[in-house]
Amino acid sequence: MNYKKLGKILGKIMILEGVLMIFPLIVSIIYKEGFQNIFAFSVPIFLLFLSGALLQIPKPKRETFYQKEGFALTAMVWIVMALFGALPFVINREIPNYINALFEIMSGFTTTGASIVEDVTALSHSSLFWRSFSHWIGGMGILVFVLIFIPESNDGSSMHLLRAESPGPQVGKIVSKMKVTARILYLIYLGLTVLEVLMLMLDDPIPGYEGEQFFHSLLAAFGCAGTGGFGFIPNSMELFNPFSQYVMATFLILFGCNFSLYYLLLIGQVKAVFKSEEFKTYFIIVAASVALIFMSLVARFDAFPQNYTTEEAFRHSYFQVASIITTAGFSTTDFNAWPMIATMVLFVLMFMGAMAGSTAGGIKTSRFVIAIKGFYINVRKLINPRYVPKVKFEGKTLEEKTVNDVYSFCTLYFFILVATVFVLSFDSVCGTTVTVVSDAGTYTVEHGFLSNFSATLSCISNIGPGFEAVGPYASFAGFNPFSKVILTLTMLIGRLEILPVLILFSPRTWTKV
Amino acid sequence: MNYKKLGKILGKIMILEGVLMIFPLIVSIIYKEGFQNIFAFSVPIFLLFLSGALLQIPKPKRETFYQKEGFALTAMVWIVMALFGALPFVINREIPNYINALFEIMSGFTTTGASIVEDVTALSHSSLFWRSFSHWIGGMGILVFVLIFIPESNDGSSMHLLRAESPGPQVGKIVSKMKVTARILYLIYLGLTVLEVLMLMLDDPIPGYEGEQFFHSLLAAFGCAGTGGFGFIPNSMELFNPFSQYVMATFLILFGCNFSLYYLLLIGQVKAVFKSEEFKTYFIIVAASVALIFMSLVARFDAFPQNYTTEEAFRHSYFQVASIITTAGFSTTDFNAWPMIATMVLFVLMFMGAMAGSTAGGIKTSRFVIAIKGFYINVRKLINPRYVPKVKFEGKTLEEKTVNDVYSFCTLYFFILVATVFVLSFDSVCGTTVTVVSDAGTYTVEHGFLSNFSATLSCISNIGPGFEAVGPYASFAGFNPFSKVILTLTMLIGRLEILPVLILFSPRTWTKV
Repeated sequence: MNYKKLGKILGKIMILEGVLMIFPLIVSIIYKEGFQNIFAFSVPIFLLFLSGALLQIPKPKRETFYQKEGFALTAMVWIVMALFGALPFVINREIPNYINALFEIMSGFTTTGASIVEDVTALSHSSLFWRSFSHWIGGMGILVFVLIFIPESNDGSSMHLLRAESPGPQVGKIVSKMKVTARILYLIYLGLTVLEVLMLMLDDPIPGYEGEQFFHSLLAAFGCAGTGGFGFIPNSMELFNPFSQYVMATFLILFGCNFSLYYLLLIGQVKAVFKSEEFKTYFIIVAASVALIFMSLVARFDAFPQNYTTEEAFRHSYFQVASIITTAGFSTTDFNAWPMIATMVLFVLMFMGAMAGSTAGGIKTSRFVIAIKGFYINVRKLINPRYVPKVKFEGKTLEEKTVNDVYSFCTLYFFILVATVFVLSFDSVCGTTVTVVSDAGTYTVEHGFLSNFSATLSCISNIGPGFEAVGPYASFAGFNPFSKVILTLTMLIGRLEILPVLILFSPRTWTKV
Repeated sequence: MNYKKLGKILGKIMILEGVLMIFPLIVSIIYKEGFQNIFAFSVPIFLLFLSGALLQIPKPKRETFYQKEGFALTAMVWIVMALFGALPFVINREIPNYINALFEIMSGFTTTGASIVEDVTALSHSSLFWRSFSHWIGGMGILVFVLIFIPESNDGSSMHLLRAESPGPQVGKIVSKMKVTARILYLIYLGLTVLEVLMLMLDDPIPGYEGEQFFHSLLAAFGCAGTGGFGFIPNSMELFNPFSQYVMATFLILFGCNFSLYYLLLIGQVKAVFKSEEFKTYFIIVAASVALIFMSLVARFDAFPQNYTTEEAFRHSYFQVASIITTAGFSTTDFNAWPMIATMVLFVLMFMGAMAGSTAGGIKTSRFVIAIKGFYINVRKLINPRYVPKVKFEGKTLEEKTVNDVYSFCTLYFFILVATVFVLSFDSVCGTTVTVVSDAGTYTVEHGFLSNFSATLSCISNIGPGFEAVGPYASFAGFNPFSKVILTLTMLIGRLEILPVLILFSPRTWTKV
């Protein structure tokens, strides 16, 4: 282990986190939140700067690092970021319990958006900003950002980091230089975010929140860009005007696209975008899901409590599909009260997730496509043992290793899912009753199997809400501390796509090879 | 496609099914059930003999068949068996709807034990016999049985059949001759079944069913041997005396063992049995599960309705673990009313299943062990890219292909699970309320997500009951015909471990190579 080099990078990221925390500090000052909130951000900033600087002192003997170090570092960076990122909530006493605060900020960085805050109106502007900002930071990946600033080496060290942090079965550099790639990605990300803020500003302000339109537009754009999903006014996105809801849903779908497609657009290769198999599959799935949910809602207008108009039925279908497939988890209505078909469409989308190379979580569309093609190859091989697979994915012959990695990932994903649901069943919250107040009325639900199952799925796919007792109008507050720690870890496992976390906690990583 | 050869084997199996149907016919005569029931079995017997004989007429040009033909034949044989096996229930009007009858007998042959019969007391002795006998037939596999009688070829044709029908990631012949292997397997199977009948006869008869002890012992032994799970008196196995319940649970665990272990025992290689990793893992899982459920029941004695004594808590824990891990699905109590931890243990066992090479369904213990070892190899490889895996399974170096096949299987298994749950959500039974009368009292449950999820899991793992509205005291009668057909297919997919069914329905199978 090249501890000194790893420490140096970790230290740089801590300093970066300190710099990023200056933004909520400024928010705190603008909104005149008083000493305690300013203190809440300045203390962690000081601690981050100090420890970050101390870690720069040792001189590493070797500048490069191996793949295992890249993976372990990535997982460690995210954990350290969360450990420090949780401090403001504890210091300003808005989330006094450290485990809750850790859950909240890990949910932020991993762009999950599951929250233990039962009443967001009790949070200060600076806390709300830090929560939503953490989505924006975590969405694109913190290490990718660092790549812009660290010197490029030719041995693939930086590639190891990108591979560990980027979602999806394959990692491609857009241009030959990693640093340039990272810069392009971040510029696209920033550009789209700014565009969304501007679009949201075009709308009328939300009644009752007239003075806050810019603040809310910014926070909504952070959430959409990172495909996070923290709410900052009551009832997630329900109170936003229809225009804003359409804008958000559309931007969510855009942020669910592989960012390299935007690069292709930028350099004028429009045709190549529409040739992308994953892109086509993604859009077909979105369209089919919207259609299916819309039809199921229209077919049962009188049978469930929300009494939508046709426009509302369409808008909520569109918004929920966009929000769930991109694993953001915002909601404009209580989809928990929808007919079974509609909730099951969302359930399947929760597994699937959007495109690889986007800010979304889940298994990813490309893995689904690769898995299905792999099954086809397997069947063909059994039918004719001499069959030589010529199946292509995105124009290239699908390699056996790629297919097997996808299988391995899916199997591990499902095993972790089942194991986590099992562990959650030890929580005494199981069997208790939760009262939900939503646009579907006030009703009680039991915290049962579906709650645990959807909570786990929601965390591993970085979505946010689940169904039943952890639905869009409920919170994760009911879980006991142990379950919260497990779910916090599950979010990280989901965000880093399992392997970096496994490697960080593998004893072999820390012994000499 | 070697249609003539396949037709010949299919015909032989149809004749065999006709012969096997003579047993319920005899039961019908013994119990003097009258003309309609005798008719119900003699008509299908006649049809089976006739079509079977007609299929013997064409002379195949080639005696051997390819792997794809072996797979397709296996799936076809099971479908044809079920299509004819369903006829008696329709003719004797006890299950007048053909789709229901098909569901019932497919559930029998695949040893699932899920039933659409709401009141088993309404069934005649011959029907009850045929249902439970179908478990015994399907448990060991029908094609394996045929291998005893068809001439052995040296080109691996018969191996193709064994591979298609045997559960587990690897298929090994016990002795070099397939025919001898099949004969040994069936003798062990028969011997253990007879032993269980004798043991059950030692117990006092069930109060109220004094004259039926032999009949019931036989049916219970059929169910245990095939790890089926059809009940034949009300409330599954609840009314049996404790001694019988212990006997059944123990035999279930024994039938969940790989049958080649019994062969090793027979030839005196006791040490080799205890060296088997899958065997050790299986027993550890059984013991840990029993302990966990027992503790969770004891810890909450006052909190749930059944008021067990300590002995009852242990017996029900032991019985349910044995019944679920072997995917039999018998029940002695309403485990639906158990605390969440206990039901989640059963839930995990529903995925797992018992040992490969046994009559149980599910993913199988060996696949779990291989998958876990595969993850270990993957992590080691990432930590050190020059790592050469020397991981062993059952004394042999674990090959990459074996691991990848397991991943592929698990991924496909989970995809089919999710897809089927999705399809079931279209059923209008969702959201309806079901009244359950059990030893936990009378209560109502909603047919929700857990019902569909556990029904699907139950069918693909060939278990029988699920939770909620398809729990141990409920039936599958509420599903609409479309859902029943889907679940019937899911049972077959589970029993044949997916690939044969995929190959049967693949157009490529039926075109010339």
